[in-house]
Amino acid sequence: MAHHDAIVALATATGNGAIAVIRVSGTDAIAIVNKVFNGKDLSHQQSHTIHFGTIRDGDDVLDEVLVSVFVGPNSYTGENVVELSTHNSRYIIERVIHLLIRGGARAAQPGEFTLRAFLNGKMDLSQAEAVADLIASNSAASHLVAMQQMRGGFSSILTELREQLIHFASLIELELDFSEEDVEFANREQLKSLVVEIRAVIGKLVSSFEQGNVLKNGVPVVIAGKPNVGKSTLLNTLLNEERAIVSDIAGTTRDTIEDEININGITFRFIDTAGIRDTQDIIEAKGVARTREKMRQARLIIYLADPQQDDIDEVRAQIKEVAQSGIPYVVVVNKNDLLTQAHRDTLAIIEPLFISAKSNVGVEELKEELLRKVNLHNLNGDDVLVTNVRHVEALQKTNESLRKVLDGIDNPITSDFLALDIRQALHHLGEITGSVSTDDLLDNIFSKFCIGK
Amino acid sequence: MAHHDAIVALATATGNGAIAVIRVSGTDAIAIVNKVFNGKDLSHQQSHTIHFGTIRDGDDVLDEVLVSVFVGPNSYTGENVVELSTHNSRYIIERVIHLLIRGGARAAQPGEFTLRAFLNGKMDLSQAEAVADLIASNSAASHLVAMQQMRGGFSSILTELREQLIHFASLIELELDFSEEDVEFANREQLKSLVVEIRAVIGKLVSSFEQGNVLKNGVPVVIAGKPNVGKSTLLNTLLNEERAIVSDIAGTTRDTIEDEININGITFRFIDTAGIRDTQDIIEAKGVARTREKMRQARLIIYLADPQQDDIDEVRAQIKEVAQSGIPYVVVVNKNDLLTQAHRDTLAIIEPLFISAKSNVGVEELKEELLRKVNLHNLNGDDVLVTNVRHVEALQKTNESLRKVLDGIDNPITSDFLALDIRQALHHLGEITGSVSTDDLLDNIFSKFCIGK
Repeated sequence: MAHHDAIVALATATGNGAIAVIRVSGTDAIAIVNKVFNGKDLSHQQSHTIHFGTIRDGDDVLDEVLVSVFVGPNSYTGENVVELSTHNSRYIIERVIHLLIRGGARAAQPGEFTLRAFLNGKMDLSQAEAVADLIASNSAASHLVAMQQMRGGFSSILTELREQLIHFASLIELELDFSEEDVEFANREQLKSLVVEIRAVIGKLVSSFEQGNVLKNGVPVVIAGKPNVGKSTLLNTLLNEERAIVSDIAGTTRDTIEDEININGITFRFIDTAGIRDTQDIIEAKGVARTREKMRQARLIIYLADPQQDDIDEVRAQIKEVAQSGIPYVVVVNKNDLLTQAHRDTLAIIEPLFISAKSNVGVEELKEELLRKVNLHNLNGDDVLVTNVRHVEALQKTNESLRKVLDGIDNPITSDFLALDIRQALHHLGEITGSVSTDDLLDNIFSKFCIGK
Repeated sequence: MAHHDAIVALATATGNGAIAVIRVSGTDAIAIVNKVFNGKDLSHQQSHTIHFGTIRDGDDVLDEVLVSVFVGPNSYTGENVVELSTHNSRYIIERVIHLLIRGGARAAQPGEFTLRAFLNGKMDLSQAEAVADLIASNSAASHLVAMQQMRGGFSSILTELREQLIHFASLIELELDFSEEDVEFANREQLKSLVVEIRAVIGKLVSSFEQGNVLKNGVPVVIAGKPNVGKSTLLNTLLNEERAIVSDIAGTTRDTIEDEININGITFRFIDTAGIRDTQDIIEAKGVARTREKMRQARLIIYLADPQQDDIDEVRAQIKEVAQSGIPYVVVVNKNDLLTQAHRDTLAIIEPLFISAKSNVGVEELKEELLRKVNLHNLNGDDVLVTNVRHVEALQKTNESLRKVLDGIDNPITSDFLALDIRQALHHLGEITGSVSTDDLLDNIFSKFCIGK
């Protein structure tokens, strides 16, 4: 293993809190902490044990800490790891990290602990990526797909497909050694049916991406309608309901979530641009390219009408335009309590959902309608979904190489060309789990992690 | 012990970070976590051990976690404690805390873990208060005084004084039992010399408060001078130097500190009011009460003069007024590089410090001068300083009661009155360490802690 030097970083968030955890990993991690730890001799402790003591910089007592010792390979990174649980003071954290750096550790790069876990074979690349997704997960759905990927559901499918392909690749490469004898060790029919099967599985995975992406990143929603029909009120009603649910757990939710609601574990993310908020443009003006571009990102449009303000023909014209976008939409009429029967009769033709945000009438029905419109299949923990653009691209490239393999079987080409196409498919498949990786790829993936992970 | 129910809270800060720690304390803490932990049976594990597994809500895998088990009384609170190290996702944290609450724990109040540590005799009250001070510490000085207090330096002095007094109190109360015999078990001369000695120690502690408070909360500084003499520039120069020092530790310092600088471990806190910034008022106008009030809070004034703008007589008049405030001050002339010899000669009479913020000339000298002016005694880890208003008030009340004891010895009063005064002194002394405490007092102290501590 190339990465043995000790790295150190704060592993917990900064801000108000009781404790902080500073993580050190590397061959010398235990020895480096031991030099500044006053308590037991850490070098003689069993893995997975915790020790109370003080961290000292010369005569200065920096903190009373709990030190957790993990002896490699039984640790997150696979190396020796020490976690110091300190009081959560910025001053103490800085002093302790500086002290450990003076003692021989260096400041960790973003994601470097997880990178080491990957390099040391503790997890594959798609699992490592799922760690970041898991930390970012903020809904039941995004949590489920990240957890499933981290626990290897996705990897195990790919690994199995890859092993079967590798089997055929070696048979075909064996043929190359006997090329003068014109033998076929690899049964072409069996190979063909395997490739067809793999392509079917990959095709299913690729097509799961749309749903996977939505589950991971949320359903992008635009609320459209003329100015002053009550779009903000509707959004606030949806948001406030959500906030009330979130905020009943004291001390856990301190960040305000703007413009996101969670319905049955699915995040609905309201696309927030001035252009979109000023929705007169969206519906009426024909030429606002930027606004239309935003609309195209939506997976759902809520069209809000106000019968006391809107002309029914105008509303119908606008709904027609929304419908032409091909994006699922819900038509909503707010201020239900103020509507006359005449209003209702006029509106009946557009089959809207009547709600009163203020009196909380119809809001639950609206949520159910939103869920129904995005038409997500029911999820269970066994479904494997692709949620990562990198993965879907690698899968598409794999399928393209496999298509060439099929062509090569049907329009016979020599074993060496066939072997080349299979190798290419294996390469792309291997990129996903990291059986094949480059420094650039790893940099690109792990630089997006936070420091300390 | 009255507080046995299990409490749960997030112990780390919220925000970006790799891991979060959820803390559970109480008789049933281990059992409650065990019910949702899939791995080893936690109820059969030794104290101070760490176990890998998953947290499950029915079939849902909420997270892969490391669970640290502390078997009471060998824990922070003195009770059974479990700490769950989870991925730092808001969603996961909420789900896990909810799950543990469904399993029988309840959400912890602010400071409740430390309150339990106090109630279970793991630390006294002044030590518990020091935990909060330690977390808030942001300089070498505030860290030193908090650490010393948390480690019991202050408590041990008080406990010793108190024990000596208790000895006399019991002798005097014994006299009450024999009141008909008119005996004196307590030697009045010895008592008197003890009380005099205690009063001297307390007097020293009380007078350490001014320094202790400054070390803990920073030295309040006002920069005065006419508009446009470069007050902001001077402040920025001081702040920027500091920022450069702070920001070379990647990943630890994400919050910007406004208007605070750290010189040799002492925080200098610039009093930030529009009134103060607009310092024309401070020096010239006679009647601006609010500005003068702010000035009185300062422990140091930097008077900034610009010879190219200011009239020397005016400057002298203003410095005279600053001097009359009785607050230590430093006179500074910026833009050193632009001064003519004539300027220097004119200014020599007011003995200013010539600096150039831009070229970094004289800035170090200014810092040294600021340190010299606040005249803090050299600190070492053995000095005991009072930093807490509650403590200084209790000490003052103790001294008042002890003064009555002395009066009672000199102008003999009956043993029962003497006993009453000694008891009163003991009561006030006991309030500091919590030997004497009320629910109101505890509420008041711990409600200022963060949740999870």
